Amino acid sequence: MQTTAGEIAARVGGTLMGDHARMIIGLATLHQARGDQLAYYSKVAPLSPVERSTAGTIIAPLGLRSSADADRLGKSLIFVDDPQAAFLELLFEYFPAPTREVFGVASTAEIGTDVQIGSGTNIHPGARIGNDVWIGKDCDIHSGVSIGEGCRIGDQCEIYPNAVLYPGVQIWNRVRLHACAVIGADGFGYRQINGRHEKIPHYGTVVVEDDVEIGAGTTIDRSFLGATRIGAGTKIDNQVVVAHNCNLGKHNILVSQVGFAGSVTTGDYVVCAGQVGIADHVHLGERSVFGAKCGVHKDMPPDQRFLGAPAEVDRDFFRQTMSLKKLPELRQQVKSLEQLVLQLQARLDANAADRSAA
Amino acid sequence: MQTTAGEIAARVGGTLMGDHARMIIGLATLHQARGDQLAYYSKVAPLSPVERSTAGTIIAPLGLRSSADADRLGKSLIFVDDPQAAFLELLFEYFPAPTREVFGVASTAEIGTDVQIGSGTNIHPGARIGNDVWIGKDCDIHSGVSIGEGCRIGDQCEIYPNAVLYPGVQIWNRVRLHACAVIGADGFGYRQINGRHEKIPHYGTVVVEDDVEIGAGTTIDRSFLGATRIGAGTKIDNQVVVAHNCNLGKHNILVSQVGFAGSVTTGDYVVCAGQVGIADHVHLGERSVFGAKCGVHKDMPPDQRFLGAPAEVDRDFFRQTMSLKKLPELRQQVKSLEQLVLQLQARLDANAADRSAA
Amino acid sequence: MQTTAGEIAARVGGTLMGDHARMIIGLATLHQARGDQLAYYSKVAPLSPVERSTAGTIIAPLGLRSSADADRLGKSLIFVDDPQAAFLELLFEYFPAPTREVFGVASTAEIGTDVQIGSGTNIHPGARIGNDVWIGKDCDIHSGVSIGEGCRIGDQCEIYPNAVLYPGVQIWNRVRLHACAVIGADGFGYRQINGRHEKIPHYGTVVVEDDVEIGAGTTIDRSFLGATRIGAGTKIDNQVVVAHNCNLGKHNILVSQVGFAGSVTTGDYVVCAGQVGIADHVHLGERSVFGAKCGVHKDMPPDQRFLGAPAEVDRDFFRQTMSLKKLPELRQQVKSLEQLVLQLQARLDANAADRSAA
Repeated sequence: MQTTAGEIAARVGGTLMGDHARMIIGLATLHQARGDQLAYYSKVAPLSPVERSTAGTIIAPLGLRSSADADRLGKSLIFVDDPQAAFLELLFEYFPAPTREVFGVASTAEIGTDVQIGSGTNIHPGARIGNDVWIGKDCDIHSGVSIGEGCRIGDQCEIYPNAVLYPGVQIWNRVRLHACAVIGADGFGYRQINGRHEKIPHYGTVVVEDDVEIGAGTTIDRSFLGATRIGAGTKIDNQVVVAHNCNLGKHNILVSQVGFAGSVTTGDYVVCAGQVGIADHVHLGERSVFGAKCGVHKDMPPDQRFLGAPAEVDRDFFRQTMSLKKLPELRQQVKSLEQLVLQLQARLDANAADRSAA
Repeated sequence: MQTTAGEIAARVGGTLMGDHARMIIGLATLHQARGDQLAYYSKVAPLSPVERSTAGTIIAPLGLRSSADADRLGKSLIFVDDPQAAFLELLFEYFPAPTREVFGVASTAEIGTDVQIGSGTNIHPGARIGNDVWIGKDCDIHSGVSIGEGCRIGDQCEIYPNAVLYPGVQIWNRVRLHACAVIGADGFGYRQINGRHEKIPHYGTVVVEDDVEIGAGTTIDRSFLGATRIGAGTKIDNQVVVAHNCNLGKHNILVSQVGFAGSVTTGDYVVCAGQVGIADHVHLGERSVFGAKCGVHKDMPPDQRFLGAPAEVDRDFFRQTMSLKKLPELRQQVKSLEQLVLQLQARLDANAADRSAA
Repeated sequence: MQTTAGEIAARVGGTLMGDHARMIIGLATLHQARGDQLAYYSKVAPLSPVERSTAGTIIAPLGLRSSADADRLGKSLIFVDDPQAAFLELLFEYFPAPTREVFGVASTAEIGTDVQIGSGTNIHPGARIGNDVWIGKDCDIHSGVSIGEGCRIGDQCEIYPNAVLYPGVQIWNRVRLHACAVIGADGFGYRQINGRHEKIPHYGTVVVEDDVEIGAGTTIDRSFLGATRIGAGTKIDNQVVVAHNCNLGKHNILVSQVGFAGSVTTGDYVVCAGQVGIADHVHLGERSVFGAKCGVHKDMPPDQRFLGAPAEVDRDFFRQTMSLKKLPELRQQVKSLEQLVLQLQARLDANAADRSAA
């Protein structure tokens, strides 16, 4: 790309402050951009990251317009309503996704019997497709992927290298499954009999609905009966554990290293930040948000934010954390107070003695 | 399957309450079963899950018999001593495990030199077996599995797709190793020399004893010398870390995302719930139980339950957690008390002044 | 090996106490060594592990020399400045690493077009190298590894079975990447538009500098633009998450199950113990040390040790933890104090009533 700040401003419908003619030859992040690169900043405050940035041209939110001084900063600033959207639009325009090459089934892919593969789908070298598997249109099943017998995969799915689907798993449409993710391993269930843990068989499966993305190394176990279910539009980061019989709502966000024990259910739009753990059979209400490292052991209501382990409503957690910080001080305070009270008591006793002596 | 509540009751030796003739055409969980399906419930209380269930027929514990009213619930209830055992028995009867097909060594499996493979063992397409590996009878080594040089694997083991055994690892009998598990990677040990972390070589191995199950994505590192050991009958869930030189007892349960640092040892029947972390060189006493997210940094005695980080005996943890919740209130209380004491002091001072003035 | 305590002492330049002629036929850890084996102990205190050890000969630090009594212990003790270094030296001498066999590109490896492979490099059976990949000299790319289009790999790298490199990733020299590690998966970023999470494309990459080791199952995501960077000499354990746009300094240590959210930056020599979590955009100062399970949500200064979640300077954490343990007691104390104060108040009131009655 080679353009100017003025041209970019025109293209994104923004208001330019500063040098219109400033050359732009690339896009970069605010922290890394050089003088001839374009970056963006989404927040209205603080201004300091914009001031510190070495980017020559920055797309910024309209809310910053009154406080920013492009000339003083020696930058060209382009103000728009949604800087991230404008930046992404430019990114797609200047760096369009490469066209997908369709080569079909690679000669070194292993394909079982009774396998159906839709048009436009690539089975990459070294992928292994079991018997009785159906795969839809325009999918990429990458190298080293193992798809077990009887799996069903919809259209436009991308399954990255070395991911594993155990037999019978169902993946709907437009699902992305990253490398080394494992879908459909046995649930972790045992009965203790005569001092031994006897395995409880898991006859169920996993259903991953439309538009779900599942991160690298994430594992989603099959259910005892029926299906472990990941609702449409839910996005799951790397190294997340979803245990047997979980039933996740739509459009959930599960950040990396979250762990859901067995039979957890969630409403729609639930968010769990990194390393959150949810105990078995718990229900998370819709739009509930759990901060990093939360531990949840009981049903949680919708529409609130939680922190801590055991999880608390966030303002209660903050109050407790603040109080805890001052706890050593409080202990001193109580100790001093105790001494003072004992002094007062001694004085009262002395007065009483005086009076009775009088 | 197609049967009736009466026939099921007879088969499991249970006592039927409600309609004997109720048709049953399938098995399902209590939460998902329909009117023509059979479910089970194991707890004696509360009764509410049974009442809310849409299952037509439910196997329930004898202890519920006096409080349940099948006619009012419109269900058939079958009371037995152990509902889960009865249900599993029916499951095995109606849905017997498919017979294992033995095909031997797939043509696209890679087999090294001096490899011994027992009768009835399948090496699936694309599995890779290094030199000098011995594999026992009736095993399944699935696609994409990599078994390093000199490994020893017993009878009736199942190693799921894309699991990795580094060289020299020993797996005994009836071990299940799930997809993308990694056994025998180098322990994480370095010496800092002139500002650089120099790698400490790991000459040891990993020994996985009989009847162990290891979950998807779990990693068990090889020892410095000797062996990292997983005791017989121990069950390990997904994404667990067991570091170098650990020595785990028999029949332990490690739930997902548990982390054991180097040289941890455990007695038999230890249970660690999800996301527990154990510091290096710690010993966990037999039958000790660690609640989710516990953090342990010192030896722990047998036969107790622990919670929190640092871990406490559970009742101490509960007391502290309760107290912490009331800490902001306690601070207010101390503040009020302080003011009251100062008032009393002022009054005493005033009295003393009065007296000396008198 | 077959040697004596006296010969070993001479070889490592140590001072021998006890039987010079004691036979040594092997090396083992202090906990597992037999009477005819050599072990080492690095600490100056306590002495008890040395006393309890069944090892016949032990290399120990000079600082123990005055307090140890070899005859009483029935052992041969060899005192040196750095027992671990001496022991490793012997280990390398008696058990030299096997010479690497160079076989080049295995016939069942899949090699794309325009691939460059340096001399002395092995591409093992079933490894898959995409188009336009450059690999340096003396590398081992093990079975089942998937290297995406356009990747660059330096000299003397070892990539263990089933690890995955997404397209465009850069690995410098002497890097070890363990089994099932995933480098370069998409960063976890979405924009919520009309109730759906729309994927933010990740055009950046990952750069892994010289002498980095990355553990089994660890995932390092690609950046939005530019690169996620792992500084030279940094060592990362198993099942660690490093999210998009992170920029790690040199010689960091990240123990297993650590999670770094997006855009975290670190100075050199930072240490994070197991299960630590760092929130997005946080900076960790050089030589800062974070204890197991720390949760960090703001920038942290250099040269200090932190514990807890939220993380505190370690001595503050210890004070708070101690105070928390005594919190139930403190509540009782305040309650008693309150009663005492009310009694004093009542007495004062009674005195006042007496006086006014007088």
